Amino acid sequence: MSNRRTAILEAAATVIARRGVRGLRVEELAAEASVSKALIYYHFEDRTGLLRRTLTFVSNRAERYTTERHTTEQSAADATADPLRRLEQALLLELQDLPHVRENSIAWGELRASAVFDPELRGELALASVIWVREVADQLGEVRPTAPESALTAGAERLTALLEGLSARWLGGILPLADARARMREAIGVEVAHLARSATPSAQDLRQADAPDELD
Amino acid sequence: MSNRRTAILEAAATVIARRGVRGLRVEELAAEASVSKALIYYHFEDRTGLLRRTLTFVSNRAERYTTERHTTEQSAADATADPLRRLEQALLLELQDLPHVRENSIAWGELRASAVFDPELRGELALASVIWVREVADQLGEVRPTAPESALTAGAERLTALLEGLSARWLGGILPLADARARMREAIGVEVAHLARSATPSAQDLRQADAPDELD
Repeated sequence: MSNRRTAILEAAATVIARRGVRGLRVEELAAEASVSKALIYYHFEDRTGLLRRTLTFVSNRAERYTTERHTTEQSAADATADPLRRLEQALLLELQDLPHVRENSIAWGELRASAVFDPELRGELALASVIWVREVADQLGEVRPTAPESALTAGAERLTALLEGLSARWLGGILPLADARARMREAIGVEVAHLARSATPSAQDLRQADAPDELD
Repeated sequence: MSNRRTAILEAAATVIARRGVRGLRVEELAAEASVSKALIYYHFEDRTGLLRRTLTFVSNRAERYTTERHTTEQSAADATADPLRRLEQALLLELQDLPHVRENSIAWGELRASAVFDPELRGELALASVIWVREVADQLGEVRPTAPESALTAGAERLTALLEGLSARWLGGILPLADARARMREAIGVEVAHLARSATPSAQDLRQADAPDELD
């Protein structure tokens, strides 16, 4: 991707986080990216084309900062050690009061909300969501390797939708960040415990399940 | 509340659900409500005043259709019989493909998202959210009377935030309604099971918890 194309997408995310999707004006975007309006139309054709590419860009950027966490918050060794801790960190990194996280989350929320009114954005939104749910389902599967695929996907759909709901409350100023993080962390624990119950039982699980009956 | 004031609020919800908060124009609102622009300013002073009252109106309306469920979906006797079923119905009524539910949910999502950019909306949004969380916490408490208050509130915060996240995906056309309802129903079951574990143990629970040790 060309540097100027990337600069336009970065600027689009910034302007959307500042004024919302419907506050995005090509004049302001051009000034923010230090390019001409003509170059924006050259790269993205029209407003819808720009919004679609920005949606994918914002989604990829979120994925990047959640998978590169070991280079910042903790050592790489730590990050790979415990699958539950890895999952927690990936999800909690989206609830951080850092300018780039806040900007990316606001832009994502705005673009997602725009899909209610603009069906042309739904293809990119659906794809980004499927990829995200798949990643979280894979991480849940590392924590609970014997859980059925359908249960992992359902759990990942719940955790990602919850994160979006909590994030919207935090960004809207009605839920303190610490509370949003606490609710998210508990939800992961609750889902992992639920997966343990829905898992294909091991021989030991079956013995334990049988045990109480022997007391009757 | 005067009839014309109510008519303006109903029309505001309709126009917001059609064009979004930033697509709301006083001309279109006046035409939709069959009133003059002057009357809108007389009742609501300015745009912010109108949005704040609309947010409260939309929230109260959602509460009304979730608490009056027994008059429509099932008999009153049924509705009061089982607290778990009552909780499920209250939450699932917000995931229904009915024009008034869809309109109310889109308007709520838009007004909530506007609070990210407009701090003047946050008072009404926070109050509406607190009331909703309190109601769901009370209903969870009827299902699990021995669960601690803090656990009920945390569970209610998760269930309501999840509902908002799932609703946004459904309204954005990327999650089928049936899937959104299934995820929500499962989440209620998962939270209720979690509350059972966090509940103050009864004498019977303590006996059961002790039982496996006797086998060792």
